[in-house]
Amino acid sequence: MSAAATARRRRDAAELEIVAFERGDLTSYSACGIPYFVGGLVDDVDELIARSPEEHRRSGIDVRTRHEVVAIDTAARTVTVRELDRDTATPVIEPYDQLVIATGGRPKHPAIPGIETGGVFGIQHLDDGIALHRAIEELGARRAVVVGGGYIGLEMAEAMLRRGLEVVLLDRGTVPMHTLDEDMGELVAGALRDLGVDVRLGEAATALESEHGQVTAVVTEHGRYPADVVVLGLGTRPAGELAAAAGIEVGASGGIGTDDHQRTSADGVFAAGDCVETHHRLLGRPVAIALGTHANKQGRVAGINATGGDAVFGGVIGTAVAKVCTDEIARTGLTEREAEAAGFDVFVTVIDATSRAGYLPGATPIRVRLVTERRTGRLLGAQIVGREGAAKRIDVLAACIWNQMTVEEILSLDLGYAPPFSPLWDPVLVAARAAAAVSP
Amino acid sequence: MSAAATARRRRDAAELEIVAFERGDLTSYSACGIPYFVGGLVDDVDELIARSPEEHRRSGIDVRTRHEVVAIDTAARTVTVRELDRDTATPVIEPYDQLVIATGGRPKHPAIPGIETGGVFGIQHLDDGIALHRAIEELGARRAVVVGGGYIGLEMAEAMLRRGLEVVLLDRGTVPMHTLDEDMGELVAGALRDLGVDVRLGEAATALESEHGQVTAVVTEHGRYPADVVVLGLGTRPAGELAAAAGIEVGASGGIGTDDHQRTSADGVFAAGDCVETHHRLLGRPVAIALGTHANKQGRVAGINATGGDAVFGGVIGTAVAKVCTDEIARTGLTEREAEAAGFDVFVTVIDATSRAGYLPGATPIRVRLVTERRTGRLLGAQIVGREGAAKRIDVLAACIWNQMTVEEILSLDLGYAPPFSPLWDPVLVAARAAAAVSP
Repeated sequence: MSAAATARRRRDAAELEIVAFERGDLTSYSACGIPYFVGGLVDDVDELIARSPEEHRRSGIDVRTRHEVVAIDTAARTVTVRELDRDTATPVIEPYDQLVIATGGRPKHPAIPGIETGGVFGIQHLDDGIALHRAIEELGARRAVVVGGGYIGLEMAEAMLRRGLEVVLLDRGTVPMHTLDEDMGELVAGALRDLGVDVRLGEAATALESEHGQVTAVVTEHGRYPADVVVLGLGTRPAGELAAAAGIEVGASGGIGTDDHQRTSADGVFAAGDCVETHHRLLGRPVAIALGTHANKQGRVAGINATGGDAVFGGVIGTAVAKVCTDEIARTGLTEREAEAAGFDVFVTVIDATSRAGYLPGATPIRVRLVTERRTGRLLGAQIVGREGAAKRIDVLAACIWNQMTVEEILSLDLGYAPPFSPLWDPVLVAARAAAAVSP
Repeated sequence: MSAAATARRRRDAAELEIVAFERGDLTSYSACGIPYFVGGLVDDVDELIARSPEEHRRSGIDVRTRHEVVAIDTAARTVTVRELDRDTATPVIEPYDQLVIATGGRPKHPAIPGIETGGVFGIQHLDDGIALHRAIEELGARRAVVVGGGYIGLEMAEAMLRRGLEVVLLDRGTVPMHTLDEDMGELVAGALRDLGVDVRLGEAATALESEHGQVTAVVTEHGRYPADVVVLGLGTRPAGELAAAAGIEVGASGGIGTDDHQRTSADGVFAAGDCVETHHRLLGRPVAIALGTHANKQGRVAGINATGGDAVFGGVIGTAVAKVCTDEIARTGLTEREAEAAGFDVFVTVIDATSRAGYLPGATPIRVRLVTERRTGRLLGAQIVGREGAAKRIDVLAACIWNQMTVEEILSLDLGYAPPFSPLWDPVLVAARAAAAVSP
């Protein structure tokens, strides 16, 4: 819908007809807001909807909900559309001049017995969130098991805590948050445990037990965890099947290959969002990272280019942030593990500082971990965990990494200083200073 | 002391003798913390002292407090030192191999009758803060007039409010915060008035009235404001006189000229801190900006280079942040006015957004103002005012300006997104997007 809305702003209805096919009932909602609705921080689910189908229609986009595109013919420039509420209806062939594919992601579900049982919830679509929200109440749920300790898993663990449930978090890794290096993941595990989450590491669900079609427990190799609801937070994979079936190039991740103009391998076909692979500026290869912020920017670029403009999506560097109750978890660039896997010779520096001038009330601990290329001194990655200011500080380092700055240059940066916002040397500068002391 | 401490870490006492002459009693304290001590947020003034003379001595720096350097002989490589507590003592000549001048700034005092009266306080030195703190109590002060609506003036207005005083803020400009453009300054004026500050603009103090040596009122061309205490927040000018008297080059601002190694025009003489002029990366000329963060970085660079190292201070771009009760005020780069005065052809975009996803509790308004070069699309300046996240967001834009990014590039940036930290498009990206829509 970002592509459609951008295109609409650039070309009026007399010039360009815009049709959007959507399998579900909704458009333009914040999937990232689901944990906050489930947790009770957002009362009305409608608040998560930025623009309804009706609103899009009023701005001149012909949104057809409950319509599924089942095939694309890139030679004939047509799509085949099935109307979901009319099972008997013959699919319709619709022509296009320019096509934007935005099929999104598909949640990863563990292939274990009982996964289709009642009380088990993915949290990919708003409907999932609504169903979980209702189920907690109707079942009088007291115990939740969250499967997967990534961003969504942590946010859902918080949501369950807020609803007063006992929460077990299962993760097959040695720490949660595999997108962080181990020691930062340990900080996160500690914070979760302090909040009362029963964090079980090195454990994967092997089966679900149920009674009368309702889940009753999650079984792992090491234990059995009673559960009234189970939340799956294992992330998504790109839904590139429709494109692949049409002969459009799809990468190893299953994501649709796109260039910096969001063009696919087929003429006149663009793609944007969780269904695509996009350029990683540090790795120099395509990656699939499902994030609303990339999706939206890519949609804008696709909408501009599909209407004769010339916009570029600059790629990604792996920035991600999450809040779990009182803790902010942030990362950008490459972890030590990722950097080494990509063949970089790196060194790591870790510093502990405070979020504000130490003498001010509200100053809280913050830890910064930098991954620096040994030969050049160039910053390749950063991770920050703290109570405040971690998320926005990672953005500063993201801008530095984007610009290929060395730690020596970063330490020079003219960042703002006042006691309520940072110590005299902001933690990111302290970290850069520590790295510069190691760097050649 | 930053230079001394850096030098000490690089060379041990057997290799290098380090002597520091300080006119006052204290070393290494946070002048920026004074408003928070006066306002009662910091109970013990000792908390503002990062390192006492005794602590420096223990780490091998020969700190001589109450010693004033009254002359420098760059040819003979000596300084003349007067011991303040021995008026009769003959000044002593001390030799040096390398000298670092760090004479700081001198508060600007209005040249008006009565300025030496009791109850009138600068807030340059910690002693000033201690005296003001005590006076408020001892005088049973109820009414304060703050002269000057810059960062320090605003912070002191907040401090006076916290102490329960009625506060009048006088500023000769049409809005407070002359380092912002007019419309952003208006936001600040509005916020101050909401807090109960009597903001008087276009008014400069012309005289002080007093009784028995204690101030009783501040008089302007337009009125008379009763006051038990008067706080001067007019900023500082570089104290370059000692250097100038020694024939060391001093700029138009009165600040000591320094290169990117903090070298002055005299061989073996470095300078750092509020007493120097430093390179402005956008203006391409030296400026004097008194900020602890520059001072500290410059001190580090001087300490490294004075001990045979090779460190660079990268210059400044005018980043500054302040918090006034619930409001964060932040700026970086050039204002529209500054950019035009420097000959840039610019356009301005202003956007209003929220600090977090709009549906989350705690989302508050935030305004971003960008100054963009018309020909290139390069971002030249940014100002942000809001309740949260303004200060850290300005750091992101500071990193962008530092790297000469265009607004089109900035809009691509991979910044973190999660609902507790920003809307899907962070306000800085929304602002960049708006500017990119104007840009060629």
